[in-house]
Amino acid sequence: MAKMKAAIFAEPGRIVLDDKPIPEVGPLDALLRITTTTICGTDVHILKGEYPVARGLTIGHEPVGIIERLGRAVEGFHEGQRVIAGAITPSGYSAACLCGCASQDGAGTKHGFKAAGGWKFGNTIDGCQAEYLLVPDAMANLAPVPDALTDEEVLMCPDIMSTGFSGAESGEIRIGDAVVVFAQGPIGLCATAGAKLRGATMIIAVDSVPARLAAARSLGASHTVDFNAVDPVAEIMRLTDGRGVDVAIEALGTQATFEAALRVLRPGGTLSSLGVYSTDLSIPLGPFAAGLADLKIVTTLCPGGKERMRRLMSVIASGRIDLKPLVTHRFKLDQIEAAYELFGHQRDGVLKIAITP
Amino acid sequence: MAKMKAAIFAEPGRIVLDDKPIPEVGPLDALLRITTTTICGTDVHILKGEYPVARGLTIGHEPVGIIERLGRAVEGFHEGQRVIAGAITPSGYSAACLCGCASQDGAGTKHGFKAAGGWKFGNTIDGCQAEYLLVPDAMANLAPVPDALTDEEVLMCPDIMSTGFSGAESGEIRIGDAVVVFAQGPIGLCATAGAKLRGATMIIAVDSVPARLAAARSLGASHTVDFNAVDPVAEIMRLTDGRGVDVAIEALGTQATFEAALRVLRPGGTLSSLGVYSTDLSIPLGPFAAGLADLKIVTTLCPGGKERMRRLMSVIASGRIDLKPLVTHRFKLDQIEAAYELFGHQRDGVLKIAITP
Amino acid sequence: MAKMKAAIFAEPGRIVLDDKPIPEVGPLDALLRITTTTICGTDVHILKGEYPVARGLTIGHEPVGIIERLGRAVEGFHEGQRVIAGAITPSGYSAACLCGCASQDGAGTKHGFKAAGGWKFGNTIDGCQAEYLLVPDAMANLAPVPDALTDEEVLMCPDIMSTGFSGAESGEIRIGDAVVVFAQGPIGLCATAGAKLRGATMIIAVDSVPARLAAARSLGASHTVDFNAVDPVAEIMRLTDGRGVDVAIEALGTQATFEAALRVLRPGGTLSSLGVYSTDLSIPLGPFAAGLADLKIVTTLCPGGKERMRRLMSVIASGRIDLKPLVTHRFKLDQIEAAYELFGHQRDGVLKIAITP
Amino acid sequence: MAKMKAAIFAEPGRIVLDDKPIPEVGPLDALLRITTTTICGTDVHILKGEYPVARGLTIGHEPVGIIERLGRAVEGFHEGQRVIAGAITPSGYSAACLCGCASQDGAGTKHGFKAAGGWKFGNTIDGCQAEYLLVPDAMANLAPVPDALTDEEVLMCPDIMSTGFSGAESGEIRIGDAVVVFAQGPIGLCATAGAKLRGATMIIAVDSVPARLAAARSLGASHTVDFNAVDPVAEIMRLTDGRGVDVAIEALGTQATFEAALRVLRPGGTLSSLGVYSTDLSIPLGPFAAGLADLKIVTTLCPGGKERMRRLMSVIASGRIDLKPLVTHRFKLDQIEAAYELFGHQRDGVLKIAITP
Repeated sequence: MAKMKAAIFAEPGRIVLDDKPIPEVGPLDALLRITTTTICGTDVHILKGEYPVARGLTIGHEPVGIIERLGRAVEGFHEGQRVIAGAITPSGYSAACLCGCASQDGAGTKHGFKAAGGWKFGNTIDGCQAEYLLVPDAMANLAPVPDALTDEEVLMCPDIMSTGFSGAESGEIRIGDAVVVFAQGPIGLCATAGAKLRGATMIIAVDSVPARLAAARSLGASHTVDFNAVDPVAEIMRLTDGRGVDVAIEALGTQATFEAALRVLRPGGTLSSLGVYSTDLSIPLGPFAAGLADLKIVTTLCPGGKERMRRLMSVIASGRIDLKPLVTHRFKLDQIEAAYELFGHQRDGVLKIAITP
Repeated sequence: MAKMKAAIFAEPGRIVLDDKPIPEVGPLDALLRITTTTICGTDVHILKGEYPVARGLTIGHEPVGIIERLGRAVEGFHEGQRVIAGAITPSGYSAACLCGCASQDGAGTKHGFKAAGGWKFGNTIDGCQAEYLLVPDAMANLAPVPDALTDEEVLMCPDIMSTGFSGAESGEIRIGDAVVVFAQGPIGLCATAGAKLRGATMIIAVDSVPARLAAARSLGASHTVDFNAVDPVAEIMRLTDGRGVDVAIEALGTQATFEAALRVLRPGGTLSSLGVYSTDLSIPLGPFAAGLADLKIVTTLCPGGKERMRRLMSVIASGRIDLKPLVTHRFKLDQIEAAYELFGHQRDGVLKIAITP
Repeated sequence: MAKMKAAIFAEPGRIVLDDKPIPEVGPLDALLRITTTTICGTDVHILKGEYPVARGLTIGHEPVGIIERLGRAVEGFHEGQRVIAGAITPSGYSAACLCGCASQDGAGTKHGFKAAGGWKFGNTIDGCQAEYLLVPDAMANLAPVPDALTDEEVLMCPDIMSTGFSGAESGEIRIGDAVVVFAQGPIGLCATAGAKLRGATMIIAVDSVPARLAAARSLGASHTVDFNAVDPVAEIMRLTDGRGVDVAIEALGTQATFEAALRVLRPGGTLSSLGVYSTDLSIPLGPFAAGLADLKIVTTLCPGGKERMRRLMSVIASGRIDLKPLVTHRFKLDQIEAAYELFGHQRDGVLKIAITP
Repeated sequence: MAKMKAAIFAEPGRIVLDDKPIPEVGPLDALLRITTTTICGTDVHILKGEYPVARGLTIGHEPVGIIERLGRAVEGFHEGQRVIAGAITPSGYSAACLCGCASQDGAGTKHGFKAAGGWKFGNTIDGCQAEYLLVPDAMANLAPVPDALTDEEVLMCPDIMSTGFSGAESGEIRIGDAVVVFAQGPIGLCATAGAKLRGATMIIAVDSVPARLAAARSLGASHTVDFNAVDPVAEIMRLTDGRGVDVAIEALGTQATFEAALRVLRPGGTLSSLGVYSTDLSIPLGPFAAGLADLKIVTTLCPGGKERMRRLMSVIASGRIDLKPLVTHRFKLDQIEAAYELFGHQRDGVLKIAITP
């Protein structure tokens, strides 16, 4: 049985490169030879043991690759095609998918709704920080990459861009809205870009790292707020003449940002939450107006599927948004442990690292 | 200056009947002679000092009455018409109203969004537990009562029915949904009826009072759960074969019901919250799936305005729902202190009390 | 190769019972042994040559049956299960499906949008008026029938009920709406029932056959209009006090009903069109208000997929709607030519015919 | 009684400048001293007698001015403020307004829905091509102009920009959509800009005038099609690889553009119609797929009201769109007959003319 290199979760604190067998291809699957992938903040949660996965699992959910082999029931694709697949891989045929909720197509409950989470790669099945990746339900998930786009140009589509944009989409931003985005990591930056694409006119980006605030401006923020320099809630209320924002996007996953988002929301506004939380959350009575303020709190898991990927690549191809500056570092797969070391400690101004086998 | 009887908030613990001047009529106002009104659970919060209002304020926000006088700028109505007005009285011309958020048209901030809450009667201006009521922005708020309907038949429209139905509407219930409604007080009962009107097929009503569970069945519940007899979360998961509900409506305003609603929600489901809370709320990490389950939490304040009232009265007139059984007791305005005594302690199976001056 | 009986389109004017091979089962397919099916008005269009299909094609798109064999890639079902499949069979993995438009998943263009129509059974592939039916993309389309429901009770789910309800759903009927449904054939009757399930309070059913108007009343119509006795447009405007209806559902497919629907619509209203038209349509300038009236015209093709079927069966199981009276006649598959003769000429008060092999 | 200059409709073919009394101010009104206004294509329809208005009516519905006097019931504004009002002037308190359909608040039917059209200025009441304008329901309609913006910068907000943007909004354009806009007059150009603001990535602008196609490119079109040089339907299908567009915006009001929009629409797509038509329309059976293609046809009348105006001015202030190039000519009110001569014949590359009293 042929072997490949893969970054696996060994135990809390250790992700290591190891040999694994190249997977068998089932009738609905596709095997990809990975050409580029990257590390996500969620992978660091896994590394630290904050988000539990099975020991020995291959990590990673942001694949760019070449189709190496197709399952016997797969039609409409051919070997040698360059493709991406979303971080979330809906089957298409689950009840969740057929009910307008494709991201919640859990691997263990394909034919029902029971479990949360259609996130499979590097979570419930082996992921893509490896030489090869098995993509389930290939017909729903393989999205051919246009020749004009490089691997790095589409590397943000599977997760960062899809998640960030969904913050703006689920917030149902309207032309002329005032929007705030809390935290300007890769997902927050994409949420800022998404807010602009949806027609917001005041887009306030909150962070404390000057390089991230600068990136936010170049991606669409009209105002930036350094939460170390000013009280962000007071500053946002001042910027909006006391009205508050129409939509507040949370892109970090902490009580502090969740609560601040609630505090700056106008009556009738929407808190669009993207963060992965690691504690219970508290909703303060006052900003919640005791339940009387027609508020919405909406959480969104990264939309996947080939049509979503096609659309995101069309945004890249249109030139309306340039995410290449997000790739600040490049490593070989052999050096992935060093890449985790750099990324996990947010050294050297890192935003995203391109990993190539 | 002519005088009238009015139930005023004297101090925490005391709502008393007192004399007040009959109000002056401004150009946009209408003066109603109240023919029937009622007491709301929120009024009891005011009585107990749990929800703060000014001392001396007339309480009550559910008016049925006769137009006694119209402001000089009011067109389209005539004195002597029998009308209702919603508990929430949008002006129509505020920024909130013109932005699709009419319930958040705060009296003090008509031309902006700053403050929450378009609830004015018995909150920021004098209410309707009195012989006369001044209705602001009369052209937006007076809704003529069809001759075929009695005062008591339309008495639930201004608040209970509008709020309860909005729980089903904001939850965006679809034909075939499974829905749970936590608490079967007057608002919860109307939410149960609203869930049926929107096409839910499994409607689970939760309470512990047998008479309320029986009322829930007659208004549309397909299943009832007595939370004193069984663990409601476990029972609801069992009834839905482990899938959870599509929409959970919270109609009480406590941490326990809010949290239970979250726990029984399927991934991608909606928690539609109607309760008036009196403490901070906690969102437990697990049922919230760390923010990854595509959940929505939506709060709704009772929709008002004359068109909403017209629609609700058309539902009554159609015979599709009969809310008359909710009026379990009748008192004269002179006896309102006794009515508060009964209602505040939930004695004698009381649901709603019709008060007539 | 084993043979089966099947009703095939021989030429315009002739649908005949003939022998055909029992189909081979591909990896994603399921073979059903049909236990009950029925004839649709669309089948009569095919018979008359008004809607073109290939000669030799097996007709029929409303199957109830038993799983006889499953493709090798199909999981989550087992042989011997009693199931239905929708008239429209989305693959789940097409771009159309993944873009929220599952009904438009055309057989020849699974991976793109080009052609209209995800209707395959009895249109682009063999249908179910036969002893056996091959269901493509079985994991997306097989819906197990609850034991408590008979074949006849679920026979309307695959097309009539799904299409009729979708008229109310696409019209986005709100609680308190006034709705008219033009034509009370099986689909119009289900649209009437759907309007009631969505909370309309005035539901006007238009037809000229007394038995159909009576059926409409029992399924939810609050008013009926016999278009032979009165001018339906004038009568509907009278019933709505000159305001017109919020939603007009067209369930026949003619210029006359389409135009009447437009004429009775209030400004801002929605014409929800279900009919299959056979001529160009004309939009008269006046009722269209020269394009200035914020009108919507929405067409909907029968939603399919297993989750839709599950939901419709849950409506039947809930007892909220009883469609059994729609089955007015019963025939054996051997007598299907006689059944077409009866149904095609609308003899003997026929609504739907149950066909059993 | 003081007099003012006003451009009135004298008879088909003649709009003339004449003296009229300065209007009386009712309790809900505001009197504006007009500082800048403009001529709309609809005014040319009136001039030609194609759209009927009363003889003697003052024309014009795009006002910028200074508050000269306020009605006694008007609060929240002060004399001397520079404001705009939308072409459509919702009252705020009509049933239409309170039902989410503010544009359909007809002057003659404020308390019902009967008549279409909330367009009053220069249609049912005197308009703004005059020295003074009476604004009804002032509290709902006066929108203060930020000091940083000039009259000409906000001149497009009352109609052109609001209408054009609404084409993109009603089409519910999503990030990544392919959109076509038929006709690149002032409204079509704003629809093109609106499509970009909503996140479309392929935006195809159709016209035949090179200057307009160039303007379309600068406002957001990714592709332009000269319908004199190529068959626009074939070209759009080619540009979209045969898939058709997600949304087609009609911005002219002719059968040819309406039909072409239908032909290039993908199954499940939306035709968003802005044009004012002057003939019946024909829907061809094939592109309509006999009613089976899940198509939507949506018409939208220019949204008005002060909050809409505030939002549009915030878009201008944000610098995301520059409509100043649309003002190609400037005339004094005294010369308005010459302005109509130029504009009516589309001479000298005219797009919009600023008129100043």
